[in-house]
Amino acid sequence: MPTHEQMVAAVHAYVNAFANSDPAAVAALFAPDASVEDPIGSPAHIGHDAILAFYTASMQTGAKLTLEGPIRTAGNHAAFAFSVALAFKDTARIDVIDTFRFNEDGKVVEMRAYFGPNNMQGM
Amino acid sequence: MPTHEQMVAAVHAYVNAFANSDPAAVAALFAPDASVEDPIGSPAHIGHDAILAFYTASMQTGAKLTLEGPIRTAGNHAAFAFSVALAFKDTARIDVIDTFRFNEDGKVVEMRAYFGPNNMQGM
Repeated sequence: MPTHEQMVAAVHAYVNAFANSDPAAVAALFAPDASVEDPIGSPAHIGHDAILAFYTASMQTGAKLTLEGPIRTAGNHAAFAFSVALAFKDTARIDVIDTFRFNEDGKVVEMRAYFGPNNMQGM
Repeated sequence: MPTHEQMVAAVHAYVNAFANSDPAAVAALFAPDASVEDPIGSPAHIGHDAILAFYTASMQTGAKLTLEGPIRTAGNHAAFAFSVALAFKDTARIDVIDTFRFNEDGKVVEMRAYFGPNNMQGM
């Protein structure tokens, strides 16, 4: 079971990777067979190559993440609320909650992002 | 598919039910065969009777919920961040994120709560 501190560190590494426009740093947080459902309900990106490609494209929007409130952890799960700013549209704000499920090694095996059209402002 | 407005209304009804110490009002938000995993990773409360019993016990702590930031919705899912105050210990604060999955009728079929010991303060 990953510790609270390991899961919190992974979330901060995720946010920092966006700050540094470093998709490889995000991909390194995931297990090789992980799935990313962003937003939840859309087709999942499965496996390292698909996940790296997805975050490479995501970061081309210049997305920067700001955590909103404490990171919640329970067992091998974490959830965190954040807002997203976009480089190409400085009035834009997207409010998102992500959930991470971790494996025994502290790698993320499932990521799901909760946001929709009603969570986008100033686009 | 429930609308954003239906899902937001369900979340507000959930928060208001705690404000009113009304477990039946919470139970009415759930489908008859729904599951409640609170916190995520613990054994689920499944079905109306188990869910009503769970919320009846929960509300005996005097728990009151304050939403923190906007309710996120995507497809038939919602996620929301909140803090919990407890009547018997006025210094206590628990930070939680809940996720709801809805059915076609706008009833909650799966609830999962993300929080752990590190999300409790002043207990």
